[in-house]
Amino acid sequence: MPERLRGFRDFYPEDQEIRREIFDTMRDECRKFGFREVDGPSIESVDLYAHKSGEEIMAQMFNFMDKGGREVTLVPEFTPTLARMVASRKDLIKPLKWYTLAKFWRYEEPQSGRFREFYQLNADILGSDSLHADVEVLNLAGSIMKSLGLGSKVKLKISSRSLLEDIIKYLNIEKKDTLYYLLDRWVKINEKDKENLIGELGISKEKLESIITGKIINELKSSNLDRLMKIMDEFNEYGTIKIELDLKIVRGLAYYTSTVFEIWDLEEKMRAIMGGGRYDNIISQMNGDYTPAVGFGMGDAVVENLLKREGLWYEKDKRRVFISIADDKGRKYSYYVSKMFRENGIITDVNVTERNLGKQIEYAAKMGFKYSIILGEREFSNKNVSIRDLITGEQWSMSLEEAINKLKNS
Amino acid sequence: MPERLRGFRDFYPEDQEIRREIFDTMRDECRKFGFREVDGPSIESVDLYAHKSGEEIMAQMFNFMDKGGREVTLVPEFTPTLARMVASRKDLIKPLKWYTLAKFWRYEEPQSGRFREFYQLNADILGSDSLHADVEVLNLAGSIMKSLGLGSKVKLKISSRSLLEDIIKYLNIEKKDTLYYLLDRWVKINEKDKENLIGELGISKEKLESIITGKIINELKSSNLDRLMKIMDEFNEYGTIKIELDLKIVRGLAYYTSTVFEIWDLEEKMRAIMGGGRYDNIISQMNGDYTPAVGFGMGDAVVENLLKREGLWYEKDKRRVFISIADDKGRKYSYYVSKMFRENGIITDVNVTERNLGKQIEYAAKMGFKYSIILGEREFSNKNVSIRDLITGEQWSMSLEEAINKLKNS
Repeated sequence: MPERLRGFRDFYPEDQEIRREIFDTMRDECRKFGFREVDGPSIESVDLYAHKSGEEIMAQMFNFMDKGGREVTLVPEFTPTLARMVASRKDLIKPLKWYTLAKFWRYEEPQSGRFREFYQLNADILGSDSLHADVEVLNLAGSIMKSLGLGSKVKLKISSRSLLEDIIKYLNIEKKDTLYYLLDRWVKINEKDKENLIGELGISKEKLESIITGKIINELKSSNLDRLMKIMDEFNEYGTIKIELDLKIVRGLAYYTSTVFEIWDLEEKMRAIMGGGRYDNIISQMNGDYTPAVGFGMGDAVVENLLKREGLWYEKDKRRVFISIADDKGRKYSYYVSKMFRENGIITDVNVTERNLGKQIEYAAKMGFKYSIILGEREFSNKNVSIRDLITGEQWSMSLEEAINKLKNS
Repeated sequence: MPERLRGFRDFYPEDQEIRREIFDTMRDECRKFGFREVDGPSIESVDLYAHKSGEEIMAQMFNFMDKGGREVTLVPEFTPTLARMVASRKDLIKPLKWYTLAKFWRYEEPQSGRFREFYQLNADILGSDSLHADVEVLNLAGSIMKSLGLGSKVKLKISSRSLLEDIIKYLNIEKKDTLYYLLDRWVKINEKDKENLIGELGISKEKLESIITGKIINELKSSNLDRLMKIMDEFNEYGTIKIELDLKIVRGLAYYTSTVFEIWDLEEKMRAIMGGGRYDNIISQMNGDYTPAVGFGMGDAVVENLLKREGLWYEKDKRRVFISIADDKGRKYSYYVSKMFRENGIITDVNVTERNLGKQIEYAAKMGFKYSIILGEREFSNKNVSIRDLITGEQWSMSLEEAINKLKNS
């Protein structure tokens, strides 16, 4: 019997229904902020990623040759598709505020919070180089965290690649890549490797520590620093989640140009929940008009882990009533009753088996329904319904209208 | 510059927002019927399809060898994944009513209503062999059509493979495959090919025509016919869309065992909007417990074409207000005002550029906003807002509370 592939997930109702609520919450927040939804293909030409995505992503692509001999890949991230979509339409009035919630694929080793197939929300503002665009996407991300009940459990960490360039110049660091590597892996690499790498940089350990702690900004004059401080101030003015400057945030992706940011759980025990930044050059690189842009991606897996850790992962079965059927007249009547219930917004299940009444009620109780409506010849003749409380075992007759009111308010 | 692949689609907001409404409508109807959502991988082992899917689907798969040397494929349909999910969980209480709305891929020639990548809603009842399960999935499909405004534009065509077996026996037809082929292609093949194929069957043209027109059922006694008639009666009892018996409906997929059905536009000018049937053996073939099942798939492309033909395809921009910013004090104040608007459910866009006030208002008008809120030092000091009607050019001052009420009711 063929099994599910490694790194892929099946979602049964007990998990999928809460996932749907999370996705709906994300979409609702995007909408409230005036972001508009877009959607793109799950397969793109490999060329689309060649010069835009980082090496890490290139190595992890699910690429293959299609039946027409094209080198294609399952999409590993959204930004290149987004850039292609914007570059190919010259009529779009900018700035654009767009979001999408879609699946992406990366062939990497499955581990906690990381799968080969995952969902990711992407929200971007395209066509504004203003810092207010940076603030707006960050306010959206913070609002999503709040709406998910995670507002006090997470923090936004922010930095700027152009600020880092200023620091590199200020400290006369020649090996820029080594610095990036060191910052990115700071919590992961051992002391000896650190010493060696610091040696390569040609700066003192104290100077490096002033970058790590962020204290370096007190000795620096830089318009890029002023910009970052203004973003942080305005983010606090709107007020969603904590924010802190962290020069260790560099983001692996090749295309970021200035602001970069991530959201982490307060204890930094998990992976980043969200990551993004400003990428001003991709769209013009694709022969589009110059379109500075800023945005983020937020995956499903770490959000799920954090919600579980915080005890916020519940089953969300919304079914309200199960209709049990006593006889043929009851079956006929059930079509009228179930239609009325559903038209009144009551989530209504109905017996679709040949089981006897006792078995039907047993099934409804086992499935966790609070109420079962019972319909037979008597109810059909009296134009009413019997309703049974499956927890107490009590049973009453009432009019259809009364039943609708009772179920709506239960 | 890399282009989008052939047979794939980009969805910009003007189309994606109505698509989202259609998907939400489909999900809402599934939920109201007590179906619960599931989700599966987009990549499966090729083996999963080997004996279950028809030859046509096998030939159209996007299959490839992954980096671990596994023969995998992008999923061409949902049923094999669903069967795998049910077979691998012995603890599930049946019957199950499950739905999913996901992407699928087939490498075929793109044409009207058919793409290489498409969305499809699948809804299935698993674990009941009762005809009432068939009726329930059909009622759901009919209700979705009604909710999309297509109730009077479409019809359900229904047949039964086991009834067709009875007819084959009754008429002593030996070449069953030829009959299936002839029924399936009846409207497409030319008269000469028809004559030849009828010759092969060894029955008279009149007899074949009595199958095509359905008149054959008047001379036949068959429990499978009685079952089909009962399904049609109960479907009419619930009452959603037109239904008709059509013995030409055979469905290409290999796994259907009795009931088969499709929804078509009344004129039958498009492709099938939905297709499905009863498949009682797949899950036991995958070493699961015997689980008779019935369900359907409904793609996005033909629904879209029909909505467009019927003039039901509108742009669904839900943005209500654009906040223009006159100065720094106005920017600061905008964070408070936009947050209040959004917390009150008003979809609020805000200037994220360095444009002057005139340009901001010009942009808001071009984007089709009816109102712009204007915030500056004066509004900040007075703790009120200015609101401008972008159509008439009128402008008033009002309290934030008044503005919220006005925008909520506009």
